[in-house]
Amino acid sequence: MWTVKVIGLGMVALSLSLEVVIWLLRHLRPGRTFNEVLFFPSEMACMEHIFTPSSPYSCMCSLPHGVETSSLVFFVTSSLHRKGVTIRVLTDKDYAAITGSQIGVLRRAGICVRCGVGSVHMHHKFAVIDGRLLITGSLNWTLTAVQSNMENILVTEEPDLVQPFIKEFRRLWNHYDPA
Amino acid sequence: MWTVKVIGLGMVALSLSLEVVIWLLRHLRPGRTFNEVLFFPSEMACMEHIFTPSSPYSCMCSLPHGVETSSLVFFVTSSLHRKGVTIRVLTDKDYAAITGSQIGVLRRAGICVRCGVGSVHMHHKFAVIDGRLLITGSLNWTLTAVQSNMENILVTEEPDLVQPFIKEFRRLWNHYDPA
Repeated sequence: MWTVKVIGLGMVALSLSLEVVIWLLRHLRPGRTFNEVLFFPSEMACMEHIFTPSSPYSCMCSLPHGVETSSLVFFVTSSLHRKGVTIRVLTDKDYAAITGSQIGVLRRAGICVRCGVGSVHMHHKFAVIDGRLLITGSLNWTLTAVQSNMENILVTEEPDLVQPFIKEFRRLWNHYDPA
Repeated sequence: MWTVKVIGLGMVALSLSLEVVIWLLRHLRPGRTFNEVLFFPSEMACMEHIFTPSSPYSCMCSLPHGVETSSLVFFVTSSLHRKGVTIRVLTDKDYAAITGSQIGVLRRAGICVRCGVGSVHMHHKFAVIDGRLLITGSLNWTLTAVQSNMENILVTEEPDLVQPFIKEFRRLWNHYDPA
């Protein structure tokens, strides 16, 4: 009789222990956070056929072609914008004025762009995607930089790193509200 | 007799469970990885009195003073070098040639500096400390950038992010070995 009770208690204890172990495994190690680092220079893959498959400019490809320096941001943002993704671009007033700037093109495509004004130079080179993924590094988002410079980009989902960038973007976005 | 055995077994099971839980807590959550993000512009604290307390240039302070633009790297590296820390600086050949460059000063201080040569422009702005801490971001390591630009620096111990930078630094360091 006691033997049965001991075995029964043992089985209960075993199953409870397994539950505790599974809970701990799930809650203390909930999958590795995505982290990735890319280094440049790198041969650039043609982006037109990826983002605009029906475009008259889509191609059979030999790289690079048809993509002007500094239009990298335009290709990415305008393609996502057409798919209904909300895009907000914050840039430096000086960049908006230079030859080859894509700011006018972005605005004509319906993308909301704000410019940093005043004497403080905007030197950030980061993007936050869906409020959870940060892309940051030394890279100016131009094809010249990608193809011709030693550069780095760091991509991470680590909340301790992503959240401060979201907060700073919101602060600057509100600060440079032209209204 | 059986009651005593059951209580005994229960106590053993309890202590074993506690051991398991403590082990899991220690091994599955071994302290949070250090992550920090800094944004600029920021008023710069005087660094001379921190790194060179016995220097004739040390001060009673009102900020900023006595520190030339682009000497930030020199102050940090030469101070650590004097304390016996091995420093390796990798920079762009163009930077070595500009007015106010600290490369000559660093070399005269005994710090090992290698320059990227060739047509590829060195645009990295990162440091790795003790093979475990990465500092990277948009910031050029100059006081002008710190005080006058919108910039970011990300500091992390996350191995998935630190290790690729160590590997890339080693690759570039060997690639630009003048010997």
